[in-house]
Amino acid sequence: MNIVEGVLNHSRLALSKAITAVENEYDEAVSIMTQIYPHTGNAYVIGITGPPGAGKSTLTDKLAKEYRKRGKTVGIVAIDPTSPYSGGAILGDRIRMMDLIADEGIFVRSMATRGSLGGLSQKSGDAVKLMDAYGIEVIIVETVGVGQSEVDIVKTADTTMVVVVPGLGDDIQAIKAGILEIGDLFTINKADREGVDKLNIEIEMMLELNQESVEWRPPINRTVASKDEGVIDVVDSIEEHRKFLFQTGKIEQIRASRIKTEITAMINDRLARYVDKEIISTDDFANTVIKLQNREIDPYSVVDNVVDSVLK
Amino acid sequence: MNIVEGVLNHSRLALSKAITAVENEYDEAVSIMTQIYPHTGNAYVIGITGPPGAGKSTLTDKLAKEYRKRGKTVGIVAIDPTSPYSGGAILGDRIRMMDLIADEGIFVRSMATRGSLGGLSQKSGDAVKLMDAYGIEVIIVETVGVGQSEVDIVKTADTTMVVVVPGLGDDIQAIKAGILEIGDLFTINKADREGVDKLNIEIEMMLELNQESVEWRPPINRTVASKDEGVIDVVDSIEEHRKFLFQTGKIEQIRASRIKTEITAMINDRLARYVDKEIISTDDFANTVIKLQNREIDPYSVVDNVVDSVLK
Repeated sequence: MNIVEGVLNHSRLALSKAITAVENEYDEAVSIMTQIYPHTGNAYVIGITGPPGAGKSTLTDKLAKEYRKRGKTVGIVAIDPTSPYSGGAILGDRIRMMDLIADEGIFVRSMATRGSLGGLSQKSGDAVKLMDAYGIEVIIVETVGVGQSEVDIVKTADTTMVVVVPGLGDDIQAIKAGILEIGDLFTINKADREGVDKLNIEIEMMLELNQESVEWRPPINRTVASKDEGVIDVVDSIEEHRKFLFQTGKIEQIRASRIKTEITAMINDRLARYVDKEIISTDDFANTVIKLQNREIDPYSVVDNVVDSVLK
Repeated sequence: MNIVEGVLNHSRLALSKAITAVENEYDEAVSIMTQIYPHTGNAYVIGITGPPGAGKSTLTDKLAKEYRKRGKTVGIVAIDPTSPYSGGAILGDRIRMMDLIADEGIFVRSMATRGSLGGLSQKSGDAVKLMDAYGIEVIIVETVGVGQSEVDIVKTADTTMVVVVPGLGDDIQAIKAGILEIGDLFTINKADREGVDKLNIEIEMMLELNQESVEWRPPINRTVASKDEGVIDVVDSIEEHRKFLFQTGKIEQIRASRIKTEITAMINDRLARYVDKEIISTDDFANTVIKLQNREIDPYSVVDNVVDSVLK
């Protein structure tokens, strides 16, 4: 049985191998994903983002358990915020999730943010599709919402949840504002801390300012994920949003937009690979760099020439 | 006097206008940068990154003041970690810097992380070049070091400093590990907090593990930037690293690699613009998306076709 057959026949090992393949083996990934694609489109995808330290992993863990209680199979794709330089995901906080892994109805996968950016959103998207084709019903994609790439990843979800936490510094507030507009719902985690009412009011105010849709008003839930408090309400809110999307037909718009985003990233990634191989990594280009360093030529002319030479 | 002449003749207004142009007006930016480029290459570029809440802005502020005391003109390019959705930089913590702005020897500019990623690193790179051509001697590029795009921006600096802070959560530790390898020096800010010795040892240990160059051992400084403690030592360390780079000739390698990175980003950005205009935004492609949604075709075949159709 090959990997694709394995995934379609609910083999956990095959699913695991397939995700490893999309992470590491470009050619094999294309072959796997081409065969998998017709079997996708059934899972519901939840994106979870928020600043570092908001307790996203713990909350994700609890949401997964609540969905299991409700009879759903759950997949988790956790994007680790490591650089391309360290060459591997820091799995520290995923160890907490080991008890989840014992449950056959849950599949957890961490992915490192190495390689190209288009590459990462493609890889996480592929992991979601593989879990979908395997038959998982609810897939949670969790990532730190600071860099644009990370935000891009979660905003392709059906429902996007922004997790915030009281009492963090100024930078965090800026980030929070930045990711506000992608939140279909908000969760104030660590809600037993001081400052929770103030934060709630701040979010309400920002929602007032940014409100574009009168059809859906993002609910603000409060949780203490580590104590399992408020988790049921969050899942209820997600389910309400899901119902809203299907009843209004908005789900089709979201999924069309997701496909567009994915295809764009894949095309740009392919072109970037081509440019790197055929232009940037050539001896000829090393000479160009020397000329640029000596200010004999300017970068914009170089770019013009390269673009003219590669495009039809 | 046009903008380019203005910049070359040390007009602050022209510099400000030029940076606005590179942020917003693509065609004008190309024209400005082509003319500016021969006048660049004199400034020393310092990249500062670290997790949210590490006090990077305050430290940047103090470093700028110390460099002023040493008779250098200073530019600051602060990358605000806002999403493309909010449409503008959150300038909150930059207000602290207003007292710097009264000094003619300091030029501060915030840039939002909107638009394409290639776009952002290009724009911040252009801002650096404009400040350089204007005659600024030391340019500090400050960004939150979490997303890969932000890391990419600072790693093109001559000297890259990673700012860490004791007592943050687990996610932060992961981030710290991720950006460790790009640090030419480390600063533990808020060093009056508990946990500073532990953090120092952790960095030392990670440096041991990752040590590739025996020639330069990244120093670890401690600061309380808000109280102006330890700032002189940090500037001394930066100056030592600068000397090291020039004495060993490594500065040329760094700058060649920076040019390569910049050109690659510019080419990819141009190709992405082309693909968006000629393919993704066309009516024809809207039909393709519908077929993809219905699983009549698969994304990889679509990507193959598009790539074949655009490349020579």
